[in-house]
Formats: sequence, structure tokens, C-alpha cells
Amino acid sequence: MSEESKSKSEERPRAVGLLGGGVIGGGWAARFVLNGVDVRLYDPAPGALDRVQQQLANARRAFRQLTLVPLPPEGALTMSESIADAVDGVEIVLESAPERLDLKQPLLAAASQAAAPGVLICSSTSGLRPSLLAAGVKHPERLLVAHPFNPVYLLPLVELCGSPSATPGALKRAAEIFQSVGMHPLVMRKEVDGFIANRLQEAMWREALWLVHDDLATVDQVDDAIRYSFGLRRAVIGPYSLGGGGAGMRQNMEKWGPVQLKQPWSRLTDVPELTEAFVNKLVEQSEVRAGNLPVPEFEQKRDDCMVALLKGLRAQGYGAGETVARWEQELRDRVPPLANSSGPLRMPTLQMPSDWVDYNGHITENRYLQLCGMATDNLLRHIGIDGEYRAKYGSYYTVETHISHLQELFAGDRVQVLTQIVHADDKRLHLFHVLRREGDEKPAATGEQMLIHVNGSSGTSAPVHGNVRERLLDLAGVHAKLPRPDRVGASIGVRKGA
Amino acid sequence: MSEESKSKSEERPRAVGLLGGGVIGGGWAARFVLNGVDVRLYDPAPGALDRVQQQLANARRAFRQLTLVPLPPEGALTMSESIADAVDGVEIVLESAPERLDLKQPLLAAASQAAAPGVLICSSTSGLRPSLLAAGVKHPERLLVAHPFNPVYLLPLVELCGSPSATPGALKRAAEIFQSVGMHPLVMRKEVDGFIANRLQEAMWREALWLVHDDLATVDQVDDAIRYSFGLRRAVIGPYSLGGGGAGMRQNMEKWGPVQLKQPWSRLTDVPELTEAFVNKLVEQSEVRAGNLPVPEFEQKRDDCMVALLKGLRAQGYGAGETVARWEQELRDRVPPLANSSGPLRMPTLQMPSDWVDYNGHITENRYLQLCGMATDNLLRHIGIDGEYRAKYGSYYTVETHISHLQELFAGDRVQVLTQIVHADDKRLHLFHVLRREGDEKPAATGEQMLIHVNGSSGTSAPVHGNVRERLLDLAGVHAKLPRPDRVGASIGVRKGA
Repeated sequence: MSEESKSKSEERPRAVGLLGGGVIGGGWAARFVLNGVDVRLYDPAPGALDRVQQQLANARRAFRQLTLVPLPPEGALTMSESIADAVDGVEIVLESAPERLDLKQPLLAAASQAAAPGVLICSSTSGLRPSLLAAGVKHPERLLVAHPFNPVYLLPLVELCGSPSATPGALKRAAEIFQSVGMHPLVMRKEVDGFIANRLQEAMWREALWLVHDDLATVDQVDDAIRYSFGLRRAVIGPYSLGGGGAGMRQNMEKWGPVQLKQPWSRLTDVPELTEAFVNKLVEQSEVRAGNLPVPEFEQKRDDCMVALLKGLRAQGYGAGETVARWEQELRDRVPPLANSSGPLRMPTLQMPSDWVDYNGHITENRYLQLCGMATDNLLRHIGIDGEYRAKYGSYYTVETHISHLQELFAGDRVQVLTQIVHADDKRLHLFHVLRREGDEKPAATGEQMLIHVNGSSGTSAPVHGNVRERLLDLAGVHAKLPRPDRVGASIGVRKGA
Repeated sequence: MSEESKSKSEERPRAVGLLGGGVIGGGWAARFVLNGVDVRLYDPAPGALDRVQQQLANARRAFRQLTLVPLPPEGALTMSESIADAVDGVEIVLESAPERLDLKQPLLAAASQAAAPGVLICSSTSGLRPSLLAAGVKHPERLLVAHPFNPVYLLPLVELCGSPSATPGALKRAAEIFQSVGMHPLVMRKEVDGFIANRLQEAMWREALWLVHDDLATVDQVDDAIRYSFGLRRAVIGPYSLGGGGAGMRQNMEKWGPVQLKQPWSRLTDVPELTEAFVNKLVEQSEVRAGNLPVPEFEQKRDDCMVALLKGLRAQGYGAGETVARWEQELRDRVPPLANSSGPLRMPTLQMPSDWVDYNGHITENRYLQLCGMATDNLLRHIGIDGEYRAKYGSYYTVETHISHLQELFAGDRVQVLTQIVHADDKRLHLFHVLRREGDEKPAATGEQMLIHVNGSSGTSAPVHGNVRERLLDLAGVHAKLPRPDRVGASIGVRKGA
């Protein structure tokens, strides 16, 4: 282990104390436990542990999708009988009581009395400034607001805000701790009600309330207007992200500033005056920002990120991803149907996407097998295997695959896959796929596969059934008249056909 | 082709006329051209065509990432010398002039004079209500606002807003047209300045300006506060999306309404009074929304979508995706180093993510090849192949792969891949990978691969070079002492080892 990684590991606290196990407290618990940190939880409400366990289960499920890297052994989640017990031996305390000063103040005060002086005392408040919370806190120099976002185990932001008496060391150590569990700490310059993100969310929320209140839009329309449009942008870039550094900002303010701010586009119209000094401030802050990109590169990066979001949502069939899926289906519907032929089964042409390319500049190897898998699925659908058949009788599982790469494929290539049944009997299905660039007679690759018909519930091989069997054997009969591909049965190291 | 798909194809217009080829007009051009629709563009500004071509190039690039489905043949992009020429023979006209009523009114009027009565006349205005734009328009019943979002070729939303004289038929036909090019039309109930999305964006923008104006945050902090937190939520769900239908809404308003709205969380604090009638309206609209999910299912769907976004951004190394990548790297750093051994090369353990599972419930076949590819990359790094070596001397390309599936793998399984060099000479590298569930001696799969050392620039085989060659032959020497795996050289159909 390198020196650097050693010190990173040491940034992780051994244990945290949580006061309150609601939506936010439970989210904290999940994030820390899954990152290997022990959690001591104080929440006298009935059923608190069950609710936290439910969030932990959700978080485990989400993390299993999020990363291939194995997580460290889980931290222990312990219920504490008292505040003193919850803060005993921990490095940081996180209070997540309901958003009421009269509830938060005594909790924070009690925690600070019981905790050792070096223990960080944090509140998850959504908007109360730390000076208000510090009343009664012992050693208030270690009192901070650490404001996270629901779901806490997934959203990376934590806003860190200290009262004027907070030490830079406390803020620094808190930032390290949150970073060590995968978060993005944002240290505020000043105390302000609502911090940054909630002020912005709140402004939008007030406008959203007016839209429904005044019967200009329904709640559905408000939600859709956001998630099909600028919501996709805001996951990638903030409102000040324009590309082009200071020049881009000046251009934007000159073009849009007067138009937007002078027209009654929102219900609430009080706006700062666009003085030269204010525009200069915006320009200067944009000039020095990290990772400034010139506009053309910025636009491509923005597009790449938005495509990634749309594809992610497409796989979920949700929101804007549903729109993309519908559009793709319509594109597919417009492709002329394939002529019925006595040749190999042909899958509709596919265009190689640019994110299938690896660092060598060509389509990466496992995508060839993905194409073979799609062609096999195409054949299985063709012979009538559907959800009902799978539930009753099972389906084909691949047991062996042999891929030969003959020519490189590149992004944008239009690729056909032709599938020939080499042999089919009651259980075995031996296929040979040819991947061909459209208009090129020479194959780009071949894929030979042996599949076995398996009963899904028993997990053991079982004969193919009924109509599916008939259609399969019919098609196998037609394909038996085709020439047997040269490479069938080839093995690595002992090259036959190449 | 089915009846349904035929009628869908017919929804696509043959041609559109565009007035103005700036950021929005160019985006319209790209969306229509790539969806096979002819575009007639009127923009007398010098360089307009070049700028539109640049957007079209960006859009082609983005679409190539977005979908595997081949796009229809591109529509023709023609520059028109006059407004009359641009609207000749088209089904819909889209005006995208700068945001000034005195520019838009005459363009729309002229277009409506020249166009046949049935041609839809639309403005892309960001905020001007259609009644204002209708002055001088012939047949104002077909005048609409069709407000899209930049980049128009990627973001699905288009807000459709008619003046009181607009016919339902015009709105319906416009919605069909935008749907046919992959958009999500949102038909507004009433005319309102700024429509829906821009009113919401604008409210947030005004708050963002105050934050910087008052020196409470920098532009970087404002952008980061959004994109690392609620920005990720807003790509998936709007502010009214809470799950649980009407009950969820009532609970939320009771819990948060008074807290949020009575505290000065945003600069602009004028809010609707939370009367019982208003809360009831919110509740009723939430009750009837499509796809209502109970809270637990809603939370899982929300998490799945946010994981998909985080993974998409991780692949781009951008925003919150960068945070996830850094966290993963730290998790990896914490894994104890592998002991130096004389056995096969071992890749760090990986945990099978749940989105690698196919409809049969186990890890899908091409992920096995992806694991083999990762193990090969691990070996190539181990022998010293890096970016510099690749640029100078090339790298190894896979020419053949033989995968044998011996046991199913499932989501959550912790998997090790062990890689043995079967043979290496100046050009050829013969590998044998064993995929094993942690703690299980029996392999889950094996992968045999033959790779050839290829010079990247010439694309032809070339000998391995220098230190990399030495390290490779050393490792091959160590591995030569290991037993030769049984399945090496096996071929499909003639089973040797199984």
C-alpha cells in the first residue's frame, strides 16, 4: 500500500455518533456503515432501528449497482440508550433531528457536554445558521453545519458552514471525513440562512407553488417541464457553467441579462442591478474557475454527459429516458422489414456507438460478444421464446463461445449479424454468427456458440418444448442446406481456417 | 410494417422551414435533419450556414453515442434566399430570431403571408406569450409557441403554448411532429410569460445572482452546489415528485410547508398562503398523476435512476461522476495488496453489479468477456504497457477468444480472475483466464485468448519491444512452471475437458 493510500485510509473515522434516525439520519447511517465506519445511533422514537435498517437495505442495493469495487467490511450499527452513549468514542457527531431550533439546540448542547473536546459536533439542518445552533454548545469552535441531501448515501454534496467561532481545523477535518466516505464537501465562505443549494431549490419551489396556485400548470406539468429539460443540464452543469471562461460569461450577461431580468419571466422579480461592477465580478469569478474549457470543447463535454444521462435513464425506462426509448422504437419501426430468406437469420443493422471504443481506438472486444448475444436473442425470439415460455419451460444458456476477430470495427460502422444454426437437437443449440460491416463481404468477426436448453427453476438442462421446438428444428433444417462455415470447431493455438 | 408503425412514420413532416440559424435554430436544424426531415433555412447573417453545420456535426457525434439504431437517411439542409422560399412546401415553420418582439413579429407575419393556410407557424421564444407575437399573423389560429431547450437535438422538452385563438388541431399536429423527432411536447393550459420551465429556471437564476452579488458564494460554488446535489435529482424527478400520491403530498406539505416557507431560505420570500384549499389542490393533482408509486417503490426507482446518472457521469469523469470515481479509487487503495506469488496473475476482486444481470437472472455472457478483458489489461499494465508505450510501439489486440461457462454468476458475487500465460513469443500472447467466485475452488468460467502485438499506426503485427518484452518473457517463464490448464486448445462441439 502506498504512503498516499495509507493516509487516505486514515482519514476515515473509526466511528460516528448519530442523533436522530429519520430520512437524513438513516441516510448518514447507511453511507457510513457501507464505507466501513461504525455508527452509534441515538433515536428514542419507536421503530427507529427498523427504518434505518430499511434505508441501509436500499443503500446496499444501490451501491451494488454503483460500483464493481468490493466495499470494505460493513461498520457496526449500534443503538445507543443515551446521547452520552452515542457520542462515546466517536470522532464526529451528526445531529439530524426535525427542523426546529428548540429541538436541535438542546441535543447539540448535550452532545457537546458529553463528547471529548476534539469531537466534531455537526448539525444536518436544512437552513438554520450555525450561530443560532451554538447556544449552549461547549467548545463551539468545533460546531459546524454539515448539510447533506436525500438520499444521503447517493448524493455527494455536503455543505459545510461554521459559525464565526469555528476553527479552520474543524472545517478541514470535517471535509476530510466526508471525502473519505465519497462525498463532495463544499465549504461556505459565510454564514447564510439556507446555505447555497437550498436557497436555490427554495426559489424554484416557491415559483413552482405559484404556478400551481395560479392554475397555470399542474404538479405533473411542473415536474415534467423540469425533468425533460433543464433538469438534465443541472445534473451536469450549474446555471453559471457556460464555457469560455470570463469572456463567455460577459457575452452571456450582455446577451441575456437585460432580456431575462427585465421581463416578468418569474413571479418574483426583484433582481440585482446589472452594474458594471457586478458583471465584472461574475466575469472574474468565471475566469479563474477550475477546468475552464473553450466553448466548443465545453459543448462537446456537455453533450457527452447529457448523452450519458439519457442512456442511463433509458436503461431505467424513466423520464427523458422513456422519450429516447420511444424514439428508438420508432426509428426501428421505420427500418424496412427483412426479406424472408433461406439464408442465415439476419438481425437488423446496428450502428456502432462511439462509447464502445476502447483505448486502442476500435470497438472493444466484449461488444463483439454483446452483438452475438443480441443475435442469439433475435433467433430465440424468432423461434417463439418469450416471457411466458421462459417461465414455463426455460430458455437457452450459453455454455461456450469462440470469437475470431478478423477485421477491426470502428464507431459509426453499420454492422449486420448473420446467424446460422450449425446443429440443433432436443437440448443443444450450436450457432455460428458472422459480423459484417454493411457492404463488406469479408466478415469483421465470427462467433461460434454452444447453448443448452435449461429449465430456469431447476437450473438443469431440459428438452426444448412444443412449438418452439418445431420452429427451431424447421429453421435448423433450412440452415442445414447452407454451407458449413469453415471456422466451426476451430480451436485457439491450432488454427484451421485463418 | 405494421399499421401502427406506418402511421407513426407518416407523422414525421417531409420538410420544415427555419427562420434564424443561431444556437436554437441550428439545434432545430440538427434534430430535424438527423431524423430524416428536409430543412429550409433562412438566415441572412454571414457565416450562418457554417455555424449550423457545426451544430449538425456536434449532433451527429452525440447521436452516435446515444443509440445503436441506425438513423434514417439525413434530410437535406438548404439555405433559402428569402422567407417565402424558406416556408415553401414545408409543413411547419419555426422562428428562432433573437429574443426581441420587434424582430420576431415581422418575421412571423411575413412567414404567415407566404405560407399556405395549413402550415403551422411557431416561435421558439423563451418567454413571449403567443398573443403578443400574433400581431400581423395571417390565420393566427395556427400560430404557436414551441419552446425548446439548448441543446435542442438532445433535450426532449418542447413547451407548446397557443394564443386563445389557436385551434386544438394545430396544437395536436405540432405535438405529433415534435414527438416524431424524439421530443416530449408539453401543452400548456394557459398563456403565461416564460411558460413553465423558464419561470422555474429564472427563479433559481435570480437567486443565484443574489448569492454572488451579496458575496455569499462564488459562481463555482453555486454551480457545484447544484450539480453535486439536487441537480442529480432534477434530471429524474421534479420538486413535486415525492412518491405516495396524494398522501405523500399532504404529508410533505404538513411537514415542510410551514418550516420552509416561513424561514428566509431564499432572497425572494413572497409565497402563496398554504390554505387548506391550496394544499388540497396539490394533493388532488398528486393523487391522479400517471405512474404513481408507493413510497418504497418510488425510492428504489429514484435510487436506480440516480445510480444510472452517477455511472454515466463517472464514465465521463465529470461533476458528481468524478466524486464517485475518486471514492472508488480510494476503496481500491484500501484493498490489501496482492501477495507476490509464483502462481497466475490475480486481478483485485470485483463485485458483480446488479445491472450486469440479464433476463435469465444471472450475469450476462458478454460481462464474462469484459472480465477477461479487464484481466488482460491488468496483465498488460503489469508488464509495463502504458500510454507512452502504446503511442510508440503499439499494444496487444485480441484475435481469438474461447469462453467456457461452468457455473452461473449472480449479482453481488465477489469474483477473482486469475491469468496464466500459456505461451508468449515476439508477437503472440496466449492467455488463459480463470474466473472464480471468492472462496470457491471450482471455476465459474474460463477464458482462453490469443493476442497479437500490433503497431497502432500501421495496424499490422509488430514485435513486442524493450523492457515490456523482457518483463513479459520473465513472467511467461514463471508461468511455464505452472500446470497447463486442461481446457487450453478446446474447441466447441468436440469437448475435451468438460
